[in-house]
Amino acid sequence: MNYKIMVKIQSWILFIEAALMAPPLFIAMYQKEAQSVFAFAVTILITFILSGFLGLISKGAKNKFYAKEGLVCVGIAWIVMCLMGALPFFISGKIPNYVDAFFETVSGFTTTGASILSKVEYLGKGLLWWRSFTHWLGGMGVLVFFLAIIPVSGSGGFSLHILRAESTGPSVNKTLPKMRESAAVLYILYIGLTVLDFIFLLIGKMKVFDACCIAFGTAGTGGFAVLDTGFATYSHFAQNVTTVFMLLFGVNFSLYFFIVLKKIKPVLKNEELRVYLLVVLSSIILIAFNIYGKTADTMRVSDTIRHSAFQVATVITTTGYSTTDFAQWPSFSQAIMLVLMLMGASAGSTGGGMKVARVILLFKSLKRNAHKLMHPNEVRVIKMNNQKVGEQTVANVNAYLAAYVILMILSFIVLSLDGKNFSMTTNFTAVVATFNNIGPGFDQVGPTCNYGAYNMISKLVMSFDMLFGRLEIFPILALLIPSTYKK
Amino acid sequence: MNYKIMVKIQSWILFIEAALMAPPLFIAMYQKEAQSVFAFAVTILITFILSGFLGLISKGAKNKFYAKEGLVCVGIAWIVMCLMGALPFFISGKIPNYVDAFFETVSGFTTTGASILSKVEYLGKGLLWWRSFTHWLGGMGVLVFFLAIIPVSGSGGFSLHILRAESTGPSVNKTLPKMRESAAVLYILYIGLTVLDFIFLLIGKMKVFDACCIAFGTAGTGGFAVLDTGFATYSHFAQNVTTVFMLLFGVNFSLYFFIVLKKIKPVLKNEELRVYLLVVLSSIILIAFNIYGKTADTMRVSDTIRHSAFQVATVITTTGYSTTDFAQWPSFSQAIMLVLMLMGASAGSTGGGMKVARVILLFKSLKRNAHKLMHPNEVRVIKMNNQKVGEQTVANVNAYLAAYVILMILSFIVLSLDGKNFSMTTNFTAVVATFNNIGPGFDQVGPTCNYGAYNMISKLVMSFDMLFGRLEIFPILALLIPSTYKK
Repeated sequence: MNYKIMVKIQSWILFIEAALMAPPLFIAMYQKEAQSVFAFAVTILITFILSGFLGLISKGAKNKFYAKEGLVCVGIAWIVMCLMGALPFFISGKIPNYVDAFFETVSGFTTTGASILSKVEYLGKGLLWWRSFTHWLGGMGVLVFFLAIIPVSGSGGFSLHILRAESTGPSVNKTLPKMRESAAVLYILYIGLTVLDFIFLLIGKMKVFDACCIAFGTAGTGGFAVLDTGFATYSHFAQNVTTVFMLLFGVNFSLYFFIVLKKIKPVLKNEELRVYLLVVLSSIILIAFNIYGKTADTMRVSDTIRHSAFQVATVITTTGYSTTDFAQWPSFSQAIMLVLMLMGASAGSTGGGMKVARVILLFKSLKRNAHKLMHPNEVRVIKMNNQKVGEQTVANVNAYLAAYVILMILSFIVLSLDGKNFSMTTNFTAVVATFNNIGPGFDQVGPTCNYGAYNMISKLVMSFDMLFGRLEIFPILALLIPSTYKK
Repeated sequence: MNYKIMVKIQSWILFIEAALMAPPLFIAMYQKEAQSVFAFAVTILITFILSGFLGLISKGAKNKFYAKEGLVCVGIAWIVMCLMGALPFFISGKIPNYVDAFFETVSGFTTTGASILSKVEYLGKGLLWWRSFTHWLGGMGVLVFFLAIIPVSGSGGFSLHILRAESTGPSVNKTLPKMRESAAVLYILYIGLTVLDFIFLLIGKMKVFDACCIAFGTAGTGGFAVLDTGFATYSHFAQNVTTVFMLLFGVNFSLYFFIVLKKIKPVLKNEELRVYLLVVLSSIILIAFNIYGKTADTMRVSDTIRHSAFQVATVITTTGYSTTDFAQWPSFSQAIMLVLMLMGASAGSTGGGMKVARVILLFKSLKRNAHKLMHPNEVRVIKMNNQKVGEQTVANVNAYLAAYVILMILSFIVLSLDGKNFSMTTNFTAVVATFNNIGPGFDQVGPTCNYGAYNMISKLVMSFDMLFGRLEIFPILALLIPSTYKK
């Protein structure tokens, strides 16, 4: 393994992270939040020094970079980033336990939005801004950001392997030819959509600070709240705007690229987009029928549809904002929500979960296998968007499901060991909600509750579940396999 | 598709079923249970007439028989068998709703042991015997029984495809060369072990009738109770005997065949057996530590170990007897039980679940895929018991997991629609417990409860889940796919 180049990349990542802590430092200064100012200043200093040190020892790194390096590099970068990103919460004393601060930061970068805090406003504007900004940065990917802005001497393998390891979904086809340009294009589109969301929220008379943080959380499909009272406080207009933008950020970004290029046909014929919209629409309708008149805030048709649409959008895109306590809904609606949580958004979006494309491929591969059992001598290929899908991609999707199920089961067992003896639904949905980067689960981790009651081991396990989910398992798994370090 | 040969096989199956209803008819006569005598007599008559009719219209059937015919034939045979097997409960008026009677019979044949009855003794000895006997017959397979006793003109394809479709686990290697003989050998071993269990129970001074029914339920890993008070009524000796025999019936029967042939080495080196025993032992120890002193019946070490061993055996082999209400145990023990439920027993045993062999193959295929991601150019084969596993088998195991997850999720959604608004844990574990042929779940379908409260649609869905589980999905799925009926 080429260790030097990986250390060099960590140095760059730390440099970027330190630089990105400047805005919250200024906000804290402007708001006269002394503890936060101190915390951000110290963290920036430490991070810069560490970055410089790593830069020094990695001088003269060679550009040899393969798939293995890509996976390991992304895995380490995310852990390092979260370790440093947690410092401001810890140093300021606002989250006095470092494991809690780490959990909160991982939850931010992985766009989960699960919190250990029951109230958030006491953090102050500086920390709140940083907390929501981690969603935005983590959504599209930190290394993708790095690729977009840093001029690396043009080695295709380097950008390719990092982009592959950090972006989501099965790589069915490479839509964008050049990786450096792709990263830049992705970020331009991402920034554009975020700004648009921000403007719409301002039109809805949301405060500038709130609109900025909410736009970050929507774009990254994160879901951290800015007010103690949660999302229900905002106007119906703001809720509806957020519903639309959450759904937009759950779409594969390469489709927006096509739209910019005025290639509309591949967008309209995109199978994943069609299934995604179909699932969203039918879920909204089914839930609206199911919850109508069942609780105090669903006595009117318009409120019912608003709640249903908002919750479907927040859950399928794995954002995690909530306008109502869906844990109080009837079993059928809860079951649909749980399934949407597992399914998740589109590949190549900022959303989490299994991804719609994987679910489609699973169904197709299952159908082919059933056919094969009855007609053992026929050979069939799997197609998606009228293109042949490689056998390795199909195998990877199946392996992904296996890893996904196994890791969730193991986490569930560890959480069950927690001395608090949480209910089976609590432990199970806590794992589902963190692994799929959603945020709230059911029962004691429902929308009105938080993750603070779990012990430190459970919190660490859930932190790694969030990383597993965001990075789609293998970059983190690679760090845990002994063979990675051989030779 | 060769419809005639399939009709002919149904005719044979019905003939056998009618004949096998003679013993419970005699028991009912001996016990002077008038309603049951009438019910069995009418059912036998109907079944014979139907068998004769199907035999007539299938005269001159050709022996062309492929994989497709095998799957469809097994799927239909099981549904027909359950439809007829439910008649005695219905006609006698003991289970006045036919859907309930069907659920109970499916639960019997599929060796699930989930019941809609809160009390069972009022059924009378004749029906109780029939109910437990369905476990025994379903455990090893009805068509395997048919192959073992009926002289079919020697077409290898015929026996092979039926045996493959009805027996459990991924077909890693064919241990027994000739199918007709295999079926006979399997049944001889099965009868031998059942008789041994029966004798041990008699030594423990269990009543002859109870010992017979309990042995049936243990052999088939079914789990229907014979007493209203359940298994806890029996002596500790009987409980321990049952623990051992449940575990024995959870082992691949081809290993017993090796032992009879005095080939001990392949048995000792069998990976599935090793993993199975390791999981059983470690679960017993972990649960014993976890539950010790936590409930009234675990204050003594010996009782704790007895309960822990019994419950682990009953759950991993998917039998479903219970000596204690494990829904009252701490979360950690419950979590282990849930995982054992999903894992299930060995391939080629009478137990349900995913099967240990499949879980091993999933881990191995996952490991290979992770390696492939890091070293894209290396080619690795998967080995089991030092033999290469074919790629089609690996693909089938992965497809199995996908089908398993998808079907359980769909069932979970339908159950959530039930007007009774059961808890998420209830609905989820009801699906797990029926799909994996276990019996009891948690919450409102826990060991002290039953499935009677669900509505008819939920019961039908769970009936099909039980069939999906016992026949390992594809024989039933084949019936639902339109392409099966094309050409």
